[in-house]
Amino acid sequence: MDTSCKKGSAIIFFSGEDPEEPVSLPLMLQPMLFCPVAVWVAQALTDAGVEHFFVVCHEKYKEKALACFPDGKAWIASDPKEAPGQLASFLAENAKGPVLAVTQPVLISYAGARQLTSEESWPAGDAASGIFRADSGTLLGSLPQTEDLLALCTSTGEQYLPMDETLVIPILSGFDLNRTQSAGRRSVVRRHMERGVYFTDPETAYIDPRVQIGSGTTVLPGTILRGGTVIGNDCEIGPNTMITNCKVGDGTSVNASQLNDSTVGSQTTVGPFAYIRPNCTIADHVKIGDFVEVKNSMVGTRSKVPHLTYVGDADVGDRVNLGCGTITVNYDGQIKSRSVVKDGAFVGCNANLVAPVTVGEGAYVAAGSTVTDNVPAESLAIARSQQTNKLNWANKRKKNKSQKTER
Amino acid sequence: MDTSCKKGSAIIFFSGEDPEEPVSLPLMLQPMLFCPVAVWVAQALTDAGVEHFFVVCHEKYKEKALACFPDGKAWIASDPKEAPGQLASFLAENAKGPVLAVTQPVLISYAGARQLTSEESWPAGDAASGIFRADSGTLLGSLPQTEDLLALCTSTGEQYLPMDETLVIPILSGFDLNRTQSAGRRSVVRRHMERGVYFTDPETAYIDPRVQIGSGTTVLPGTILRGGTVIGNDCEIGPNTMITNCKVGDGTSVNASQLNDSTVGSQTTVGPFAYIRPNCTIADHVKIGDFVEVKNSMVGTRSKVPHLTYVGDADVGDRVNLGCGTITVNYDGQIKSRSVVKDGAFVGCNANLVAPVTVGEGAYVAAGSTVTDNVPAESLAIARSQQTNKLNWANKRKKNKSQKTER
Amino acid sequence: MDTSCKKGSAIIFFSGEDPEEPVSLPLMLQPMLFCPVAVWVAQALTDAGVEHFFVVCHEKYKEKALACFPDGKAWIASDPKEAPGQLASFLAENAKGPVLAVTQPVLISYAGARQLTSEESWPAGDAASGIFRADSGTLLGSLPQTEDLLALCTSTGEQYLPMDETLVIPILSGFDLNRTQSAGRRSVVRRHMERGVYFTDPETAYIDPRVQIGSGTTVLPGTILRGGTVIGNDCEIGPNTMITNCKVGDGTSVNASQLNDSTVGSQTTVGPFAYIRPNCTIADHVKIGDFVEVKNSMVGTRSKVPHLTYVGDADVGDRVNLGCGTITVNYDGQIKSRSVVKDGAFVGCNANLVAPVTVGEGAYVAAGSTVTDNVPAESLAIARSQQTNKLNWANKRKKNKSQKTER
Repeated sequence: MDTSCKKGSAIIFFSGEDPEEPVSLPLMLQPMLFCPVAVWVAQALTDAGVEHFFVVCHEKYKEKALACFPDGKAWIASDPKEAPGQLASFLAENAKGPVLAVTQPVLISYAGARQLTSEESWPAGDAASGIFRADSGTLLGSLPQTEDLLALCTSTGEQYLPMDETLVIPILSGFDLNRTQSAGRRSVVRRHMERGVYFTDPETAYIDPRVQIGSGTTVLPGTILRGGTVIGNDCEIGPNTMITNCKVGDGTSVNASQLNDSTVGSQTTVGPFAYIRPNCTIADHVKIGDFVEVKNSMVGTRSKVPHLTYVGDADVGDRVNLGCGTITVNYDGQIKSRSVVKDGAFVGCNANLVAPVTVGEGAYVAAGSTVTDNVPAESLAIARSQQTNKLNWANKRKKNKSQKTER
Repeated sequence: MDTSCKKGSAIIFFSGEDPEEPVSLPLMLQPMLFCPVAVWVAQALTDAGVEHFFVVCHEKYKEKALACFPDGKAWIASDPKEAPGQLASFLAENAKGPVLAVTQPVLISYAGARQLTSEESWPAGDAASGIFRADSGTLLGSLPQTEDLLALCTSTGEQYLPMDETLVIPILSGFDLNRTQSAGRRSVVRRHMERGVYFTDPETAYIDPRVQIGSGTTVLPGTILRGGTVIGNDCEIGPNTMITNCKVGDGTSVNASQLNDSTVGSQTTVGPFAYIRPNCTIADHVKIGDFVEVKNSMVGTRSKVPHLTYVGDADVGDRVNLGCGTITVNYDGQIKSRSVVKDGAFVGCNANLVAPVTVGEGAYVAAGSTVTDNVPAESLAIARSQQTNKLNWANKRKKNKSQKTER
Repeated sequence: MDTSCKKGSAIIFFSGEDPEEPVSLPLMLQPMLFCPVAVWVAQALTDAGVEHFFVVCHEKYKEKALACFPDGKAWIASDPKEAPGQLASFLAENAKGPVLAVTQPVLISYAGARQLTSEESWPAGDAASGIFRADSGTLLGSLPQTEDLLALCTSTGEQYLPMDETLVIPILSGFDLNRTQSAGRRSVVRRHMERGVYFTDPETAYIDPRVQIGSGTTVLPGTILRGGTVIGNDCEIGPNTMITNCKVGDGTSVNASQLNDSTVGSQTTVGPFAYIRPNCTIADHVKIGDFVEVKNSMVGTRSKVPHLTYVGDADVGDRVNLGCGTITVNYDGQIKSRSVVKDGAFVGCNANLVAPVTVGEGAYVAAGSTVTDNVPAESLAIARSQQTNKLNWANKRKKNKSQKTER
C-alpha cells in the first residue's frame, strides 16, 4: 500500500445551516480569529500531508468554500444528485486506501492532524470527533447505490476518538467559536515555536493559520498576523503590530506598526508607529520611521523616511533621504498624481512635493519648500521667504496687551 | 406576590474602613479595573432587574458612594441614628417581599446577579457570600427597635451560598482586588458575548461594567473601554484602542486609537494611530486617519482628515478635505481661537490655518500656505514663494567640501 | 552563627552547552523575556539577600556571564584547574555557614528565593531543583583535593526539594524557556504587586527582573519595561508602552509610547503615541504629546511639545511652547547640528528651525516660518509669503475642467 496516498485526500462536509443558531452561514464558513473555520481545517490537514480535498457544500456557499482551500486542490460538490458520481471520480484520481471524512465543523490542531494522517492505528478515546477514516475502495464500491454521502462515510468509516480533547474540538454553535479559537491560536503558535520562532507571550500572539514565519524570528506581545503574510528569518515583529497579507524579508523589524498588502525587504526597520497601506514595495536596508505613512509607493534600497512623513503614490529611489515632515502632495482635489524622487536625492524637512513632479538624481530640496516644478539632477530647489526678525516684538506685544487690559 | 417587586430593591453596606489595609477608602469605593467596586455591584444588580438601592455609608464618602449608582436610583443613609427610619421609608416606597442586602465588598458576576434575583430557591453551597435575602415586611416590623441595620439584615435574612465561586467573590482586602478584577472582566466580557459581541481575545479586553456595546461589533485585542462609553452595532474596535466616555455610532471602526469624551458617528473610520480629545463631534462617513489629533472640534459628514493633521478648536463642515499636514493654529501664545472650514472646502498639504480664520464654502488653500485672512467661498488662497532651482548646486557643494577637507 | 552570612553567598554553575539543543550558548545565558536566565537567578537571589556570587563558566562566555550579576558582586572561575583555589578564596572572604549552589539552569521565583535563603529547614518535596545548600566549612576542607566543583556541591550539599513547582523551575532545554518565562513574568509582577504597584492586567505586563517600580504606580495592559528602567511613585504607565533603560520620576504618565535610554522627570506626561529616543533629558511638568519624537535632546521644566513635532539634537529651555508641526532641521545631508530654544520662547506651528540656530529667550517664531538665522531674545522671527486670494478660482477651475471633458 502506498503510504503517501494514505495521507493524500480528505472529504469535507460543510453542514448547511446550523440548526440551533439563527445564522445562515454554515459554521465551517464562520470566522475564527481572522478566517473561516474551514481554512483552519484545510491548513492543519495540509500541514499533515493531505493534498486533495473533496468539499460537499450548499450551492449558495460554493465559492466561499472553495476559497478556503489551497488553490487548485479542492473539488466542490454542491448538487446532491451529482455528488456521488463526482466523489467517485475524485477517489479514482486522488485516493488509494484510507480517506479522511470531516463530517462536522471542528477545530483540528496540528498535533491532531498528524495523528489523523498517521499510519498507526487511532487511539481509543471516548470523545466523538466527527472525523472518520474510510477505505476508498469500499466507498467506491458503495457510491453507485448511495444518495447520502455523509451517511456513507459515517457508516463505513472508523471514527477518530481522541484521547486528548485539545487534538480535535467539535464546534457545535457560533458561541463555541469563542472557546475553540483560543485553542486554535495556541495550536498555531505552538507549531511556530517548534519551528524556531520565539514568542515573548504565546497568549497574546494572534496568528492566522495561513501565515508563515521564519526561524529565529521574535514575535513580541500584541502582534496580529493575518492572511497570507510571510515573515522571514531573524525578524523582530511587534509589539502591538498588525500585518495583513504582506511579505517581509529577513532580519527586518516591525515595531508597533500596521502593514497591509505590501512587500518589505530585508534588514529594514519599520516603526514605531508607522502605517504601510496597500501596494507598497519597500526595499532592503530601508528605514521607515515613526509617524510615517506609505501608500501605493516604492521606496528603494538604503533610503530613509525617518519621521512624520507621508509618501503616497510615489517612486522613491535608492539612498534617498526624506526629511522630517516631507509630504507628497498627491491629490489636488480632482485627480491623484505620482511623485518621483530619484536615487541619492535629499528632501529637506517640511517640504511639499506637489505631484506630478520629479526630484532628480542627487538633487536637494531646501527645508520648508513647496516644490511644484521638477528639480534637475544635482540641483537645489528652494521656495521660501527671507527671514525677518522684528526686534523686541514680544515686549511690545505684552505692553499692548496690558494696555488693552487696562482700558 | 408581585414578581417585579421581588427583584426590585437592594440594601448596600459600604463598610467603613478596611481593618487590615492602611487605606482610608472603603473597599467598595476602591477601583477595580477602572471604576469602584460599588459600580460593579450596581451594574450587575441593575442588569438582573434591581431598580432601587439603599446605601449605608460613612458621611465622608456619601457623594462618592452615590455616584456609583444609576442617577436617581439610590438613597443614601450616613447618619446611624436616622438610618432605620430612612430604610423604613425606602422599603415602604420600593419593596415588597424579599430584599437583597449586600453586607460586605463583593464582586457579583452577571450570572450571580441573575441567581440572586431569581424567584427560585437559592443553592445550598458552602461558601459565604455576605449577601442576604430578607423579607421586607419582617425588616419593616423590626426597624423601630433596631440600631444596627447590618446585624438586622444578617440575622433575619437568608445568606446566599453559591455553588460556584465565580458567581459571587468576596473582596477581603485591597490585594484581593487584583484577583477579583480578572473575574470581573471575564463576567463583563461574557455578558457582551452572549449579546452578540465578538471578541478576538476575551482575555485582553478591558471593559468597564457601565459600557454598552451593540451586537455584531468585533472587539480586537488590547482594547480598553471605559466610563459611560456606548458603542453601536457592527463596529470594529481595536486593536490597542482606548475609548473613555464616548458615543460611537454603527458600522464605525476605531483602530489603534484613543478617544475621550466625544461623539463619533456611524460608518466613520478612525485611525490607525489617531487621538481624539474631549469635546469633539465627528459626524457620519468621516475619515479620521493616521497621526491625526482632533480636539474640541466638529467634523462634518463625509469629511476627510486622512493623515498627520491637527484639528483643534475648529468647526469643519461637510465634505471637507484637510490635506496631509494641515494644522489649525489655535494658540498664539496668549489666547486660543477657532478656525472655521466650510462645506466642500479643500485645504492643501502642510497648510496652516491661523485662527481666528474662516475658509469659505468650496474654497481651496494651496499646499504649503499659511492662511491668516479669511478665504472667500469658491476662492483659492495661496501664500508661498516661487521655486528657484540652483543648477548643479549639489556638485559644487561636494567640491567645496572636498576642497575644505584638502586644506 | 551570623545570620546575615547565612544568606550571603551563592555558587552559580553555567553548564557549558546544552546537550540536547543545537545551540552553543549555555541555557543560563539564553534570553528569557528580555534578559538571560542568569539575570533572573541573580535578581531573585539578590532580592532574598544574597550578596556575593561565585560563577563557574566556560572561558568563552566569561564576560557575558559576569554582566548578569550586580556590578562588583561576582567572581568568575573559567579555568577548571584554578577554580578550586578561587572558590577557596571566595568562601574565605564571603561565606560562613551555608552556601547555596545552583548547579543547573533554573527559574527561581522571588518566593522560592526567600525560602532558599531562609534559616528554617527546607521542605521535603519530591521535585529535584538542582539547587543545593552546602556548608562552607565542609567545602573549604574538601577543596584542596577536589577537581570537580559541581560534584563536590551536589555530594556534600542538601538539595532543595520544593513542595510547589512554581518556586523553582528547572530549565532543561531552549524550548522550556517558553514555559518558564510566563512563570518568571508572574513572579516578577507578583513582587511588584506586593510592593504597592497596581496592574490592570498582571498577565499582559512584561517586566524585566531588573526593573524597579515605585508604589502607587498603575501599570496598564500591554506594557513592556526593560533593562535597568526605574519608574517612580504614583505614575501611570501604559497601555501599550515600551520603556527600555529609562529613569522616570514621580506622578508621570506614559501612554502608548516608547522610551529608550533617557530620563523623564516628575509630573510629566508623555503620549499617547510619543517616541523618545536615546539620550534625552525631559524635565518635570513637561508635556510631550502625541506624534512627537524627541532624540538626543533636553526639554526644560514646564515646556510643552504637544503634537506632531520632531525635537532632535536640541536644547529646549523652560516654559517653551513648540507649536504643532515644529521641526528641528538637524541634518543637512552632510552633518548634524544642534538647535537651541531658550526659556519662554514660543515657536509657531509648522515652523522649521534649521540648525545650528538659536531662538532667544522669550522670542517668537511665526507659524509656517523656516528659521535659518538666530532669533534675538523677545523678538519675532517671521519668514513667510503674503497671502493672496484668487477669487472665484474654484468655480473657474470646475468650468475649465468641464470644458476639457466636453472637447
